[in-house]
Amino acid sequence: MKKRLSLTQRIFRLQVRLRDPEWRRYGALLLAGKMVGVGLLLLGIAAVFPDLLGFGKVFAADPDLKGNDIINPLNTVWTLVAAFLVFGMQVGFTMLEAGFCRSRETVNVLMECIVDTCLCGILFFAFGFAFMFSHGNGFIGYHWFFLQGVPATYETSGVAFLAFWLFQFAFADTCSTITSGAMIGRTGFVGDLLYSFAVSGFIYPIIGHWAWGPDGFLVTMGTAGNFLPSLGMNFHDFAGSTVVHTIGGFIALAGAIALGPRLGRKFKRDGGGPMMPHDLTIAAAGGLLLWFGWYGFNPGSTLSAMDFEGIGRVATNTTLAACAAGLTALLYTYMSSKKWDVSFTVNGFLAGLVAITCPCYWVSPVGAILLGGIAGVIVVLGVEALEWLRIDDPIGAVPVHGFCGIWGTLSLGLFASGQYGLTGAIAPDNTAPLTGLLYGGGLAVLKAQMVGSLIVTVSTFAVAMAVMYAIKAAGVLRVSAEGEAYGLDLHEHGISAYPEYVISSMGRPGGMIAKEPAKPITEAATQFSVMEPLS
Amino acid sequence: MKKRLSLTQRIFRLQVRLRDPEWRRYGALLLAGKMVGVGLLLLGIAAVFPDLLGFGKVFAADPDLKGNDIINPLNTVWTLVAAFLVFGMQVGFTMLEAGFCRSRETVNVLMECIVDTCLCGILFFAFGFAFMFSHGNGFIGYHWFFLQGVPATYETSGVAFLAFWLFQFAFADTCSTITSGAMIGRTGFVGDLLYSFAVSGFIYPIIGHWAWGPDGFLVTMGTAGNFLPSLGMNFHDFAGSTVVHTIGGFIALAGAIALGPRLGRKFKRDGGGPMMPHDLTIAAAGGLLLWFGWYGFNPGSTLSAMDFEGIGRVATNTTLAACAAGLTALLYTYMSSKKWDVSFTVNGFLAGLVAITCPCYWVSPVGAILLGGIAGVIVVLGVEALEWLRIDDPIGAVPVHGFCGIWGTLSLGLFASGQYGLTGAIAPDNTAPLTGLLYGGGLAVLKAQMVGSLIVTVSTFAVAMAVMYAIKAAGVLRVSAEGEAYGLDLHEHGISAYPEYVISSMGRPGGMIAKEPAKPITEAATQFSVMEPLS
Amino acid sequence: MKKRLSLTQRIFRLQVRLRDPEWRRYGALLLAGKMVGVGLLLLGIAAVFPDLLGFGKVFAADPDLKGNDIINPLNTVWTLVAAFLVFGMQVGFTMLEAGFCRSRETVNVLMECIVDTCLCGILFFAFGFAFMFSHGNGFIGYHWFFLQGVPATYETSGVAFLAFWLFQFAFADTCSTITSGAMIGRTGFVGDLLYSFAVSGFIYPIIGHWAWGPDGFLVTMGTAGNFLPSLGMNFHDFAGSTVVHTIGGFIALAGAIALGPRLGRKFKRDGGGPMMPHDLTIAAAGGLLLWFGWYGFNPGSTLSAMDFEGIGRVATNTTLAACAAGLTALLYTYMSSKKWDVSFTVNGFLAGLVAITCPCYWVSPVGAILLGGIAGVIVVLGVEALEWLRIDDPIGAVPVHGFCGIWGTLSLGLFASGQYGLTGAIAPDNTAPLTGLLYGGGLAVLKAQMVGSLIVTVSTFAVAMAVMYAIKAAGVLRVSAEGEAYGLDLHEHGISAYPEYVISSMGRPGGMIAKEPAKPITEAATQFSVMEPLS
Repeated sequence: MKKRLSLTQRIFRLQVRLRDPEWRRYGALLLAGKMVGVGLLLLGIAAVFPDLLGFGKVFAADPDLKGNDIINPLNTVWTLVAAFLVFGMQVGFTMLEAGFCRSRETVNVLMECIVDTCLCGILFFAFGFAFMFSHGNGFIGYHWFFLQGVPATYETSGVAFLAFWLFQFAFADTCSTITSGAMIGRTGFVGDLLYSFAVSGFIYPIIGHWAWGPDGFLVTMGTAGNFLPSLGMNFHDFAGSTVVHTIGGFIALAGAIALGPRLGRKFKRDGGGPMMPHDLTIAAAGGLLLWFGWYGFNPGSTLSAMDFEGIGRVATNTTLAACAAGLTALLYTYMSSKKWDVSFTVNGFLAGLVAITCPCYWVSPVGAILLGGIAGVIVVLGVEALEWLRIDDPIGAVPVHGFCGIWGTLSLGLFASGQYGLTGAIAPDNTAPLTGLLYGGGLAVLKAQMVGSLIVTVSTFAVAMAVMYAIKAAGVLRVSAEGEAYGLDLHEHGISAYPEYVISSMGRPGGMIAKEPAKPITEAATQFSVMEPLS
Repeated sequence: MKKRLSLTQRIFRLQVRLRDPEWRRYGALLLAGKMVGVGLLLLGIAAVFPDLLGFGKVFAADPDLKGNDIINPLNTVWTLVAAFLVFGMQVGFTMLEAGFCRSRETVNVLMECIVDTCLCGILFFAFGFAFMFSHGNGFIGYHWFFLQGVPATYETSGVAFLAFWLFQFAFADTCSTITSGAMIGRTGFVGDLLYSFAVSGFIYPIIGHWAWGPDGFLVTMGTAGNFLPSLGMNFHDFAGSTVVHTIGGFIALAGAIALGPRLGRKFKRDGGGPMMPHDLTIAAAGGLLLWFGWYGFNPGSTLSAMDFEGIGRVATNTTLAACAAGLTALLYTYMSSKKWDVSFTVNGFLAGLVAITCPCYWVSPVGAILLGGIAGVIVVLGVEALEWLRIDDPIGAVPVHGFCGIWGTLSLGLFASGQYGLTGAIAPDNTAPLTGLLYGGGLAVLKAQMVGSLIVTVSTFAVAMAVMYAIKAAGVLRVSAEGEAYGLDLHEHGISAYPEYVISSMGRPGGMIAKEPAKPITEAATQFSVMEPLS
Repeated sequence: MKKRLSLTQRIFRLQVRLRDPEWRRYGALLLAGKMVGVGLLLLGIAAVFPDLLGFGKVFAADPDLKGNDIINPLNTVWTLVAAFLVFGMQVGFTMLEAGFCRSRETVNVLMECIVDTCLCGILFFAFGFAFMFSHGNGFIGYHWFFLQGVPATYETSGVAFLAFWLFQFAFADTCSTITSGAMIGRTGFVGDLLYSFAVSGFIYPIIGHWAWGPDGFLVTMGTAGNFLPSLGMNFHDFAGSTVVHTIGGFIALAGAIALGPRLGRKFKRDGGGPMMPHDLTIAAAGGLLLWFGWYGFNPGSTLSAMDFEGIGRVATNTTLAACAAGLTALLYTYMSSKKWDVSFTVNGFLAGLVAITCPCYWVSPVGAILLGGIAGVIVVLGVEALEWLRIDDPIGAVPVHGFCGIWGTLSLGLFASGQYGLTGAIAPDNTAPLTGLLYGGGLAVLKAQMVGSLIVTVSTFAVAMAVMYAIKAAGVLRVSAEGEAYGLDLHEHGISAYPEYVISSMGRPGGMIAKEPAKPITEAATQFSVMEPLS
């Protein structure tokens, strides 16, 4: 971190110091001492001097900047901060999934989330990113493997290329983590590793290329030369309702189908119901952390701070959709159960966040509230549909990410407001804003969104089913019945998440109530001493 | 996200690529292939070309910037990052309140925090923000309902207007969440919804307008034409010791009084004491997350990155006040109890953060340490005062936010240092810095702070009492005694927070010690298998 | 926060408003009303006007910027955001350490982390920062006590000085917190306070001065005039593998040796093994939060956004090293235990993060993966070595921070790639990049790293042993055997972390399984009512 200073810079620094009274008192004396002596000594000191300065980058004093000298750093800072927030969603997912599962499978959930991340990093560096974001053809990119030959900055927004890579890695990691949610409690860890390899290395990047690659066939859908029947409109997915959430959600669905339900899971029409979560505090805190991280996910997808009105609009729309969805899910479930349901409220605001992810750039705040509010109902209906279909999705990953990802993608065709922002501003690049059906824009946008969403959904589901059944055929998708009854944590990981807590293996509303009153302190203390040799 | 490129931009891109060896190797070959053919084919490809480029905003290469072209984006990024951090405080509040309550009321706490946020978003969009920040008169704003007619950027700092909205929403949400802390464990959820509606939609925004609105009567207190007797000094509240914390804390006090204590809560002078928290790990982590989020709350309130010395000063003062308050609360409680108390240490540093929130811009680091240190003692005395008054505030919301909010507001009148920063720099807008009593500035600032704090405190408390007693009169403020004994979680939400854990309903120091030794693994496993059909 | 506007600015604002349709409708009417009247009235209103404007900084409209007008704010924003993230690591450390310890010592862990932070803030303000970062001689700085006489901005990167202080405080706090990890479960709280005082106030800042101070003898090692035999190469530690992690880890080792193991802790070669953690969910979430915060730690150490390619490179290298280390630790432990171990996976990715912290600026992504992967193995071997040496380090602080800190520091001598970034770009200050042994650079860098690491490690360990044994001699390092058997939480803090949970004092794989089936809701409810008077 040590840098050399030019003579001019040293003089400038000296001038700054001489205006500083404290420095004058001590520092000038010090400087004076150093300056005593002949010219050779001065030169000797000068050789030492550069490193006396301390670390920190050195720049010319008050330069005349050209635009990109400052735009590129600012856009990079914005993109990196957003990437950090999106990475922070991993903490949220880990807590949400852990809290919503049973205690016997908690360690497995933690491991899945962490190892997914590690695997995704290496794969996305090696070839995932190349498949997704490099130039190639409409179906796949085939440059930039191991980040070889990439430019210094990302295309025209001037973001440092590796900052752009980190941002996209965090997105890939999100998709990968979503898939595990519906597969909790019965998937073997080797099976986890295998399907994660397929998701992070191939399914997400290749299908993602279609919608987000530089030459993906969905992003060029509306232009001549595309093999699809021309709709005159490209497919749009601002921050990934389709690319991240629909892909993640439908891989999760394929996994849940291939696995079948957990042992002992009875469905509503068989007189049962969902298994109890084991820690709603952790789950709710995780859900709120996801909301927090979403502020990187959506506003960061501008990849540029220059579009500052755009990022403000996206941030506000994201917030309002989440708020509306949380409330509609709360009220809708209250109407039938007469209980204020915490799981559906959390999944409700997450559904709103998933839905607004695609259209957040092009809709008005009122549109965000409406489409978010609908997402809050869709997630409840989706959970009921899976229950009716006897599909065991322990945390609701399929309704939240899969179904609301589709809804959010389509909602752009309805709610695109035909203008950028509240003041009708023009986008920085002079492109025309999108106009949806409800704003008099006809069916063009809706059709393009339907085609794109359908192609991605069907392709993802088909490939994921093939992968999951292949892993199943290899005998490593699901653990043995004994292992599952024993609990995945002890079976696969050799430890329970809470070795000291006394657990009832039957989570029921109300939990267990200890029949014994608590010991007074002195008695408990005695007992501790007695038990000590064993612990 | 696809944008069109002008011909010039395409040529520029080509030039960049041709300097890239990797691109030359593969890309130039590709380009050469594409360039084979006649002019018509070239034109056809040109029509496809714009979308081959990939997404990302497009800007002119290296433009000559005017100042606001870059100031507005930078200030918006700063404000948005700060807004995200303030929103992140919701995770902290949720964990802090959940950890400090009893396990039987934990789900209710989670729901309160989440639904507050959702409700606040919609209300603050619809009219809360309008009441608070739009132009009107000294008492209320009456434009900008549903964000109609707002400008593209916030006044003169050039922040995108919706970024400013998000920042202020996060503040409103904080105030709303504070109120719930003192009302834990006995408030019915419908009552929660009703008073949250009043707080987020009316009390916070309207009283907030007085101190922070563009024409609020407290912020113009020192100028001619104000109805108050002129003190020659305006009321100052940099980041909301009064506006957010005193308002939140005194609504909480009104709620706690209207509700009365939880069933079974005995006070010290009746031979009892506070009810036990149920999870101090979650509580302490939540407290630290609040500290983390406070770095958005205070430094972000500059609303501008241009005042970079100011935000550095605010961030450092915020840190030092929190550190000092944590230490004084720790030592003060140790002197009486001879225990190093974790609850008071957490509430101590939070008290310091609340206190520094108003004066953080105008005091020196030493001032921050002193006023923070005093806050750490005030919060302990405040808890004792409420205990003596037989008011049940389960997490200490009133002492932390209410009492230390007042102290912080007044402390500006004592500690305002009369200069900006360590080097005596002048503020960017050439305003004169404030000088408090201890720095030779006389009583002017202190008087203004006292008047402002008094008006806000009394008004808030009076209105909040009216609201709380109205909800009480409607019979929905407090749940039935049966419901409360049963536990709010099961009664209002149909689930306990930890359905699998064996809970002692009597939290006592030392907890319960199981009398049975743990089963060896094989035995436990057998038992799992046997029990499986039931789970 | 109220600022005055110049007349020009008011006119400009008016022009903006007049282009706003909504404002024209309401606002223009309002304005017209105000403009009725004679000149004197207008002047009277003008006196009131400045404060009607609302708060927010005021800048000239569209100024022509000089470079530093915008570089300094941007660099300050970047440094502050990074500082906030590093501070956020405290939440991660608190959760990680709390989750990995036994429930009986959890409150003590929480207190240690919180009080460390508070103490460090005050000490680093008073003299820690002065010792470390002010000018002095090669061994210690002796200016800037209590931040007196500091300049407005940090040297030549133009960061606001107090923002730089906050960033460095967060680093000091990290080092201080690391030390506590190996001392969990038997250290008295007064002993905690004493050694924290030594660490935050003296050991970290003074030894840190050698490597990071403006004139530290390690940072000037390669230049003439240094007392060390010249190696022609300075010691490099970009973000603190040595300064923060090796120092923290070896103080932890000294503490663990001085303390001896916890009561009842048997080591592997005595037929025992590590004590069980009590909450792996909290531990894993804490570990991921540390990873999140590391994005401030490493990329923020550029202290400048201008080097935007550098921060992108650092962020990506940090990610890849963590991913690789998590995977190698997972696979290496799986080979011997046949279990997918969560503790080692978490400590694995943390080991990768520690290792990449020194070389992150100078290595390639492939280098980051290799050196991270090796760190994941080192941490496992390190834990085994401590086990063999009968040293009780409950959370693995010594292997993660101490051993992998050394490895990371040395790895620069092997993996420094000889170029900046993927595209071979030149650093902004035209310094030559470092070249390690594996990239044909010979032994120069490796030798300098070995000398620096050795000096810091030996000095730290020697001083820390002296401090720990001095505190031990004073009789306050370790609690009494009775107190420890009773549990540190009840003994030192008077409360357990989970007063309501029924805890088995013998954490064993599998935990305890309750023999009684859960009560149905109605029965549980009855029981609650019956027990209520006692709670």
